[in-house]
Amino acid sequence: MRWTGEVLEMLDQRVLPRTETWLTLRTWPEVAEAIRDMAVRGAPAIGVAAGYGMALAARAGDNLSEVAKGLFATRPTAVNLGWALDRILALKTDDFYVIEAEARAIEAEDLAMNHAIGRHGSALIPSGAGVLTICNTGGLATAGHGTALGVIRTAHYEGKDIHVYSCETRPRQQGLRLTSYELLAEKIPFHSIADGAVSALLASGKVQCAIAGADRIAANGDTANKIGTYALAVQARHFGIPFYIAAPSSTFDLTLAGGSEIPIEERSSEELTHIEGIAIGPEGCPVWNPAFDVTPGELIDAIVTEVGVLRPPYRFKSDLFEVPKVETSA
Amino acid sequence: MRWTGEVLEMLDQRVLPRTETWLTLRTWPEVAEAIRDMAVRGAPAIGVAAGYGMALAARAGDNLSEVAKGLFATRPTAVNLGWALDRILALKTDDFYVIEAEARAIEAEDLAMNHAIGRHGSALIPSGAGVLTICNTGGLATAGHGTALGVIRTAHYEGKDIHVYSCETRPRQQGLRLTSYELLAEKIPFHSIADGAVSALLASGKVQCAIAGADRIAANGDTANKIGTYALAVQARHFGIPFYIAAPSSTFDLTLAGGSEIPIEERSSEELTHIEGIAIGPEGCPVWNPAFDVTPGELIDAIVTEVGVLRPPYRFKSDLFEVPKVETSA
Repeated sequence: MRWTGEVLEMLDQRVLPRTETWLTLRTWPEVAEAIRDMAVRGAPAIGVAAGYGMALAARAGDNLSEVAKGLFATRPTAVNLGWALDRILALKTDDFYVIEAEARAIEAEDLAMNHAIGRHGSALIPSGAGVLTICNTGGLATAGHGTALGVIRTAHYEGKDIHVYSCETRPRQQGLRLTSYELLAEKIPFHSIADGAVSALLASGKVQCAIAGADRIAANGDTANKIGTYALAVQARHFGIPFYIAAPSSTFDLTLAGGSEIPIEERSSEELTHIEGIAIGPEGCPVWNPAFDVTPGELIDAIVTEVGVLRPPYRFKSDLFEVPKVETSA
Repeated sequence: MRWTGEVLEMLDQRVLPRTETWLTLRTWPEVAEAIRDMAVRGAPAIGVAAGYGMALAARAGDNLSEVAKGLFATRPTAVNLGWALDRILALKTDDFYVIEAEARAIEAEDLAMNHAIGRHGSALIPSGAGVLTICNTGGLATAGHGTALGVIRTAHYEGKDIHVYSCETRPRQQGLRLTSYELLAEKIPFHSIADGAVSALLASGKVQCAIAGADRIAANGDTANKIGTYALAVQARHFGIPFYIAAPSSTFDLTLAGGSEIPIEERSSEELTHIEGIAIGPEGCPVWNPAFDVTPGELIDAIVTEVGVLRPPYRFKSDLFEVPKVETSA
């Protein structure tokens, strides 16, 4: 994602890795459509895009409170979207330059938080470890570096000799399409696997920890993330392998006591039955296609944030991110 | 699959459900290629196809012991293949009519066993149950009716008002392509789901049991089946939901003490990275693609065979299928 000062340029993630197409978004409805149709995805990246959407609206003289509602309605689960919009609305201004500066700040802070998450999280990764992950939580899903993939990236650059196992992540295949693309570009050793291969892999002893991102974290640590994350956590627990979540403070929704209150987006059947426009399943095939699931906090061995590594039992309060809380050894 | 007395006609499962193409196989190498490339798949169906492959070879005057080796080499994991070939070789004849009769017997017995499996297994399915399954274990995977899907079919026709949840089953998508196709044809209510959605589904309370087929069962109950089966068993156990295997006696390999001795076929990267010939993953994406996994016997709450419902602890001996063993209540 690149903000030129005039327009928001965005690498279209729907067609990666086959084609590197940059979209030029000039209006907030174009930004809304890019979020809704997943040209941009990943909770932190959605928040950043929404910030620039508000800047585009401010320059066009649109009603910002209406625009915020329109952007908010695009995708219900990731809390970073509402968080970024609230941050802009809290400025109580429609001045383009003030809003643009805030959008830039959201982006810059996300990048800085990801680097901090990477440093804290890398301490959890043993040298020589096999690390299992799901979906895409890298530079494409954030302002840069990444959350769970940021931890992997930092561990790799610290010379930890890790090997990544990346779940395909059906239905949209963000692992196979996007995480592979980032790992190949960074020359981090890895294998892609089918989502169903997780237990066979964990039984093989090749994996020492699993790490995923988050779309919304409730006060008790329950974590909404890409469908398949809960399955990963259950299987990791069965095999005695630690399961971690990596996410910035903007992903926490402490207004929710538990995960049952998180709205879960259900997307169209075609995401499963059609690939690249080709019908794979039979016509009329009914599909249950939730985009996210909610992993109970008790299955999460640690949550890595920009202020440090949080350990269970999770009982997050509103002062959570006021005092830096860093685990010294891991 | 249809044996005309002259040739083996086979519905090409690689292009289902988009196209119903019947292959006409006139020689045993054509049968071998159909097995290897998965135009026919499913352990019992492979056994039946191999029987007719031997019949075609006998009529052509080929060396049957060499032919058996060639057919055996096509796919290593399903034991029904070797079992069917051994059955033909044990006739110690190269007479076409004798071999053809044995191949027909293998097919007819498989169909009868599947109906018996359906009756025994249906007793395990509560009325109104949600039933989770994986891969395709229906008429397409067997001589007819099916194993795990045969149990589902029988339960449906007994009026049990069940609802099926069918895992897509990456990489080859046999659930989405073939099981959906069979369920739609039989008007059995169902939803297809992504393989990663299993924990979210089980947490919802909509599923009362899970059932899968098998490619090889060792003496301690360890069961090789389509990749993802182990993951299903682990998740079912986590949520306290019974997990069953349905398979005929031809799937048992009592020469193996445990599952670690079962050879696991690894297939090409392209099965994951390419769909319908289109590259989805980036070029050069490394993939770990085992076609099967081995679920430990202790995660299997019952194994349904044509002689009845077998319960753990599993310590199968060679007399296993000599005395019918039927559980009277379930």
